[in-house]
Amino acid sequence: MSEQNGAVNLTINNNIGTIEFYHPKGNSLPGAILRKLAQTITEAGENDDIRVLVIQSRGDGAFCAGASFDELIAIDDYDTGKEFFMGFALVLNAMRTCPKLIIVRVHGKTVGGGVGIAAAGDYTFAEEKADIKLSELALGIGPFVVGPAVERKVGKSAFSALSIDATNWYDAEWALENGLFNKIFGSTYDLDQAIRALASELAKSSPEAMKNLKAVLWKGTEDWDLLLEQRAEISGRLVLSDFTKNFIKKFKNK
Amino acid sequence: MSEQNGAVNLTINNNIGTIEFYHPKGNSLPGAILRKLAQTITEAGENDDIRVLVIQSRGDGAFCAGASFDELIAIDDYDTGKEFFMGFALVLNAMRTCPKLIIVRVHGKTVGGGVGIAAAGDYTFAEEKADIKLSELALGIGPFVVGPAVERKVGKSAFSALSIDATNWYDAEWALENGLFNKIFGSTYDLDQAIRALASELAKSSPEAMKNLKAVLWKGTEDWDLLLEQRAEISGRLVLSDFTKNFIKKFKNK
Amino acid sequence: MSEQNGAVNLTINNNIGTIEFYHPKGNSLPGAILRKLAQTITEAGENDDIRVLVIQSRGDGAFCAGASFDELIAIDDYDTGKEFFMGFALVLNAMRTCPKLIIVRVHGKTVGGGVGIAAAGDYTFAEEKADIKLSELALGIGPFVVGPAVERKVGKSAFSALSIDATNWYDAEWALENGLFNKIFGSTYDLDQAIRALASELAKSSPEAMKNLKAVLWKGTEDWDLLLEQRAEISGRLVLSDFTKNFIKKFKNK
Repeated sequence: MSEQNGAVNLTINNNIGTIEFYHPKGNSLPGAILRKLAQTITEAGENDDIRVLVIQSRGDGAFCAGASFDELIAIDDYDTGKEFFMGFALVLNAMRTCPKLIIVRVHGKTVGGGVGIAAAGDYTFAEEKADIKLSELALGIGPFVVGPAVERKVGKSAFSALSIDATNWYDAEWALENGLFNKIFGSTYDLDQAIRALASELAKSSPEAMKNLKAVLWKGTEDWDLLLEQRAEISGRLVLSDFTKNFIKKFKNK
Repeated sequence: MSEQNGAVNLTINNNIGTIEFYHPKGNSLPGAILRKLAQTITEAGENDDIRVLVIQSRGDGAFCAGASFDELIAIDDYDTGKEFFMGFALVLNAMRTCPKLIIVRVHGKTVGGGVGIAAAGDYTFAEEKADIKLSELALGIGPFVVGPAVERKVGKSAFSALSIDATNWYDAEWALENGLFNKIFGSTYDLDQAIRALASELAKSSPEAMKNLKAVLWKGTEDWDLLLEQRAEISGRLVLSDFTKNFIKKFKNK
Repeated sequence: MSEQNGAVNLTINNNIGTIEFYHPKGNSLPGAILRKLAQTITEAGENDDIRVLVIQSRGDGAFCAGASFDELIAIDDYDTGKEFFMGFALVLNAMRTCPKLIIVRVHGKTVGGGVGIAAAGDYTFAEEKADIKLSELALGIGPFVVGPAVERKVGKSAFSALSIDATNWYDAEWALENGLFNKIFGSTYDLDQAIRALASELAKSSPEAMKNLKAVLWKGTEDWDLLLEQRAEISGRLVLSDFTKNFIKKFKNK
């Protein structure tokens, strides 16, 4: 896979598995990369050399610009639409069912599906510059697939606000206060120190205890394989609407 | 309906429906006004000229002083008691089942049922002077009807605190931190600017996407028609107790 | 029961029942004391002279150091392990099913099961020095028994953080922001003034209304008798693992 289409890499050090995803367009994620990311998470979950996972993205720009806009504007039938939105469903379900605790490292701005990845982490560290936005409604769709993951962490009020106020950024401080992030830092150095400290601690902790803790933390989400697919179907239908088609037409003519 | 008994008005501008309720006694709400408010919300939900709703109250005093005390002190049988408490149940269920997103504008102090209206908004803006209180327990009843709406937004801990600590005001900053309000402003001007900006944005957004978002945000509340009626029955019984009768007697003798 | 093995005392004044627990080792709680605490809570719930309960611990050191470490290191079979972890389950279920509202007074540091007691209060006051920690994972177990009580108050994000980051203290400000504490104070004097004010208010409030409010606040937890027992079984198995045995061996050799 050429790096211009994005990349997903897994490295293992001292029982810490680090998964890095990348795409040249702001770490936005096309379907092929999302599927590779989901598969890599699942395989890391089965790898006995790994006791704790860290998910991060490359560079010092955006953490994740969300789903790939190039793919979005090419959708013209329901099956393609549903498949498009299933990408993040597969990643979120892989994170959910992974028996290892997952730390997410959010170094920069995050949109849409990327907010879902931040939310699906078991402990999420971020930098203070990591503003977030759920911009889906502005495109005539909605944050339906990532919704359950985001609401699980931030609650009904903050999820309502984020999903309805689709054109404004919410800053990292807001994300911290509302539980999307667990700790925020003023520099990449401090961010990485904190992640290293927790990951090292967990790499020495009881795998059996962590497996039970992971199961307890995600209890009640057993229906998400089906639920997130149903959510992808809602978005897959909405994306075919005149509203979204007109939005895309305007965007193409810019 | 004469304005001295209160009023409910709906105006429509640029696909934004604005519902204003009013009562001369601090915008407290008698049963007739609550029923008219519920009906107006339902009709606005069915009106294709309206894409987003704003609920506000008149004046620059209290946003809502809760249920009508004049009616409360006249209750002396269970059926009247239940019917009294059903008023806010009807309003909350109308807000819940309305297929349009609802913005609530809380410009001042809010008590009891008014806190429920603030909580049932999909995005709630408030002024910094908008202190809140759930005073029900002090009267020998409890915030049973509004409870599900308030807890849905602020969570178990904040709802416990509000409902148990029934004689103290909690300020708008507290309401913001706990998710009852989504944004607060230092002036009415700023409040209205922010509401206009979001309402205008939503009036241009995809009605179909917003309808799906509304359904997703309220998923899991399908039993509220029955639940809020059961809650009205609890309050309808409690209001007949010696405790409440004595409270009312003292109040009348003041 | 000699005080060197700990103590539980109930006093009643002006319809306020105050339960104080004590253990010379930082108010850590052996199984016998936990069972006496659970029983005292249940009896206070049935005592008509009591309208509201306050739970506190003795001294100005730790509020509660959690389960007794002396007992933990002596466990070498599953039945003993399960019985050990059932202690806090009994206390939490006694608090949950008590028909009276319960105020908890957290005057100092709190660990593990003590965090569960703070969480199971209906209104929890604390001092600013009351740091908290869920250290279970560091011992090869997990906060499984207290988990439902803690998550009910602080939500999924904060509970995930506390349970995963098992070696770090979280301060009282964090506990307040996340709903574990409802109010915090800079001095013991202010703490006690606030508790007296609320307890006195509730002692004058309608017992029937408070009983209904308590039921409403705990609705949805009816399965906790079974759930917390299942959680005690998870911990009872984990505590027999090589990981915990090695941890204990190192501890004994210190």
